[in-house]
Amino acid sequence: MGKEREGSRVLAALFHEGRTFSHWQERAVSEALVEAAFELTCLGPTSGNCQPMRLALVRSPAAKERLLACVSSGNYEKVQTAPITAIVAYDRKFFELLPRLYPHTDARGWFTMNSALAEETGLRNSSLQGAYFILALRAQGLDCGPMSGFDADNVDAAFFPDRRWRTNFLLNIGYGDRSGLRPRLPRFDEVARWE
Amino acid sequence: MGKEREGSRVLAALFHEGRTFSHWQERAVSEALVEAAFELTCLGPTSGNCQPMRLALVRSPAAKERLLACVSSGNYEKVQTAPITAIVAYDRKFFELLPRLYPHTDARGWFTMNSALAEETGLRNSSLQGAYFILALRAQGLDCGPMSGFDADNVDAAFFPDRRWRTNFLLNIGYGDRSGLRPRLPRFDEVARWE
Repeated sequence: MGKEREGSRVLAALFHEGRTFSHWQERAVSEALVEAAFELTCLGPTSGNCQPMRLALVRSPAAKERLLACVSSGNYEKVQTAPITAIVAYDRKFFELLPRLYPHTDARGWFTMNSALAEETGLRNSSLQGAYFILALRAQGLDCGPMSGFDADNVDAAFFPDRRWRTNFLLNIGYGDRSGLRPRLPRFDEVARWE
Repeated sequence: MGKEREGSRVLAALFHEGRTFSHWQERAVSEALVEAAFELTCLGPTSGNCQPMRLALVRSPAAKERLLACVSSGNYEKVQTAPITAIVAYDRKFFELLPRLYPHTDARGWFTMNSALAEETGLRNSSLQGAYFILALRAQGLDCGPMSGFDADNVDAAFFPDRRWRTNFLLNIGYGDRSGLRPRLPRFDEVARWE
């Protein structure tokens, strides 16, 4: 029973109590916790082991200013007050690493010949990895605030000027202020059908 | 210490011991476990609470045959022998549900005027939800085998003939046969930079 309760506690932290935070405690976040989270993230599956996700972890005041110039007014304060804002991106040339990551065969040609497939694969798999990262951060006791309200082209220009990395979404990281939470929005659970 | 070990055990099941399985034990999977996993999945964050993921859980021999006609030769046996293969899809018209899921405002117009944004949002967020589903299935003691080697247009034609749902990836579900595992492929951990 003790074991089951503790296992349940971890699942509660990952899923039941996990919420999208907009308000943050004034409490510093250790780099080591974030790095432990992306070590877990790297273990999650991606297609052909392609692992296209890249992260820019924005923390310094100067880098925050550059990022704040790209976010929507509704997200400005969230980004400004979060201890860290991760730019969850993908490497548009992730396939160049495949000889190392997927040594069975030279899989580069699947993508060099088909740029639409490369973009879709980068977006799909960096999103999978972004989701693993959200849950891995929660497993470290941290809270998250993922966001899509920003100009991705501007973020790319400000942070990835060679355009090799493409911004997917933003993720505020810190210790959330639960007193600022509203009730959870409705869930759509009619998602599945058995065939 | 006991608590920490048990919490670590859950994380081990989700991340460290979780592997992509190609071989399956002949052991039935309870519907209730899969449904418990997608109840957890629904709790994960999506942009504007849009929750675009839809699942067709392919289990009957007749449905399996229809699906097998769409997969690559390298994935045929994996799908044939898995107790369940989930088609992880997204609703191309997910935004029609926004008045119910995101009642603050009528957000449908963000997408009705911009079909490229709707497709990208569907792909990104159904991928996030697909990743939550993979980890939630592992939390139920199940194993997964996600796959991208198939013809998505053919799967759509066979399972979603009105084309409202769009196939994102396939996910075999069952109890994996660990004796069929090879060593884990290399991980790319130079993903992050601090700014």
